[in-house]
Amino acid sequence: MAGPFAIAYEDVLTAAERIRGRVHRTPVVTSQTFDTLAGRRLFFKCENLQRVGAFKFRGASNAVARLDATRAARGVVTHSSGNHAQALALAARERGIPAFIVMPRTAPAVKRNAVAGYGGQIILCEPTLADREATAARICAETGATLIPPYDHPDVMAGQGTAALELLEEVPDLDAVMAPVGGGGLISGVAIAARGFRPGIAVYGAEPAAADDAARGKATGVRQDQAPPKTVADGLMTTLGALTWPVVRDAVDAIYTVDEAAIIDTTKRFWERTKLVIEPSSAVPVAAALGEAFRAARPEIRRLGIILSGGNVDLDHLPWR
Amino acid sequence: MAGPFAIAYEDVLTAAERIRGRVHRTPVVTSQTFDTLAGRRLFFKCENLQRVGAFKFRGASNAVARLDATRAARGVVTHSSGNHAQALALAARERGIPAFIVMPRTAPAVKRNAVAGYGGQIILCEPTLADREATAARICAETGATLIPPYDHPDVMAGQGTAALELLEEVPDLDAVMAPVGGGGLISGVAIAARGFRPGIAVYGAEPAAADDAARGKATGVRQDQAPPKTVADGLMTTLGALTWPVVRDAVDAIYTVDEAAIIDTTKRFWERTKLVIEPSSAVPVAAALGEAFRAARPEIRRLGIILSGGNVDLDHLPWR
Repeated sequence: MAGPFAIAYEDVLTAAERIRGRVHRTPVVTSQTFDTLAGRRLFFKCENLQRVGAFKFRGASNAVARLDATRAARGVVTHSSGNHAQALALAARERGIPAFIVMPRTAPAVKRNAVAGYGGQIILCEPTLADREATAARICAETGATLIPPYDHPDVMAGQGTAALELLEEVPDLDAVMAPVGGGGLISGVAIAARGFRPGIAVYGAEPAAADDAARGKATGVRQDQAPPKTVADGLMTTLGALTWPVVRDAVDAIYTVDEAAIIDTTKRFWERTKLVIEPSSAVPVAAALGEAFRAARPEIRRLGIILSGGNVDLDHLPWR
Repeated sequence: MAGPFAIAYEDVLTAAERIRGRVHRTPVVTSQTFDTLAGRRLFFKCENLQRVGAFKFRGASNAVARLDATRAARGVVTHSSGNHAQALALAARERGIPAFIVMPRTAPAVKRNAVAGYGGQIILCEPTLADREATAARICAETGATLIPPYDHPDVMAGQGTAALELLEEVPDLDAVMAPVGGGGLISGVAIAARGFRPGIAVYGAEPAAADDAARGKATGVRQDQAPPKTVADGLMTTLGALTWPVVRDAVDAIYTVDEAAIIDTTKRFWERTKLVIEPSSAVPVAAALGEAFRAARPEIRRLGIILSGGNVDLDHLPWR
């Protein structure tokens, strides 16, 4: 693979040391049912069982731990209403520093409550990207707090990569790993970690067909925008960042896309058979692994690791209702 | 404790040897959130992750394995539409013998399909206990198959007890164990296993207030009937059997009851926080451990093991909808 990228394998190893004992070493589970459906052995890395219910706590913990004492004391800022917001709030609380979370005033109460429950200070803004960025910038200026973006940041990318490192430490002889692709923080960290640990390994991304900027980017060689997508996999609606895109372009073998029906069906079937709650974003790589395109293209892959990115769902509004 | 009972500790040990490698050794998980809610350390034995999604596979496997070759060849029979039916079907299939499952013709398609999926031969009957028993007796007479009842049978009780044995092997210093109470197969096996492994341990049962025959039995010293109960914990509607009742009477310290709202709320909260799908019957002991009655009565219990009995739910009909 080419490079240099925003992070190297050593950054993932250092991140793993730094966050050891702060993040859960999540289990790797298997399922005969899904092995049969996929036609190969699958190894699921359960980041749904990570603290705050998502891999995001790895990157947030690494980024917060990296701050020197003076900067850290002024706190951290992000604009997010998803898992990164909760992750940053908890990582900051554990270091004893403030976390300022900019959220659109339209964010559901359940998400606000989750952030507040982890001690985050919520600042509401208008539901536009411009106002989110402007509000976050204002908070930074007023408080001296450090902006920790949700994916396009070396410390965040390196932290997310530790999920793949742990997976390979437990199952070293994987032929390939697959992870969902949103902003690219997870897939880029996974790619750098997996290829560093086992140079010959294949790395695949999976994304909703309705939010396929990474697949289009790979096809054209140019980072793609996308109109605000409509997908049940609400963790994967962002586009790749300036730092994550080169890793996806050069260190990810292929991106597979899946349609909404497959995402929903796979989410439900996964709950039924494994008794593990995963969010639809986590079901995206599972659905890709079960899909015809992947099965036809990659018969040589016998043992595939899949990162289950998270398990945060609103049980009052399930996607199959 | 008194006795003798239908099973002794040695029967549980023998059952554990007999079913080793056929049943999953399920994990024990913990949750800071639930520890805080309970005011003590909780250790959850995840029988929702057992094969067929419930502890029932332990007892069915033990009972099927105990049959000599001649009897086994004629097959096994039960009348059940729940987890025991699926468990017996799979245990029989793995031994290469037929399983005849008598089900009421009103049983939902999802339950019929589950039994058929494990290779069980379904015989429909009228939805009355009399016709279920008569039909099962007719099948036994016609085929020579052996009736394996869902709970009131020594091999079934001993098999279920292996769940507590494994829990204590992994967490030996528990002060108490708690399990849900339906027909009593699980709680009786658990009580014999736990007291055999660790004589000073406390053993508690938990049941829906709407199906409280065990609690009334303990209060009066006499086995109780109950009108067909209406509870969301559909695995716990049966009454104690002739063999399980004496164990509950003499070897279980107390039965705690919980109301329907607590069962539903605890089920949902458990999914949300642990990302593990449990069925409402499994939430019954969790709700009891979190309830005021138990907390007030048992301050000395620091480390409590809880058997999560199963995870089979209909995701299209969740109890909080």
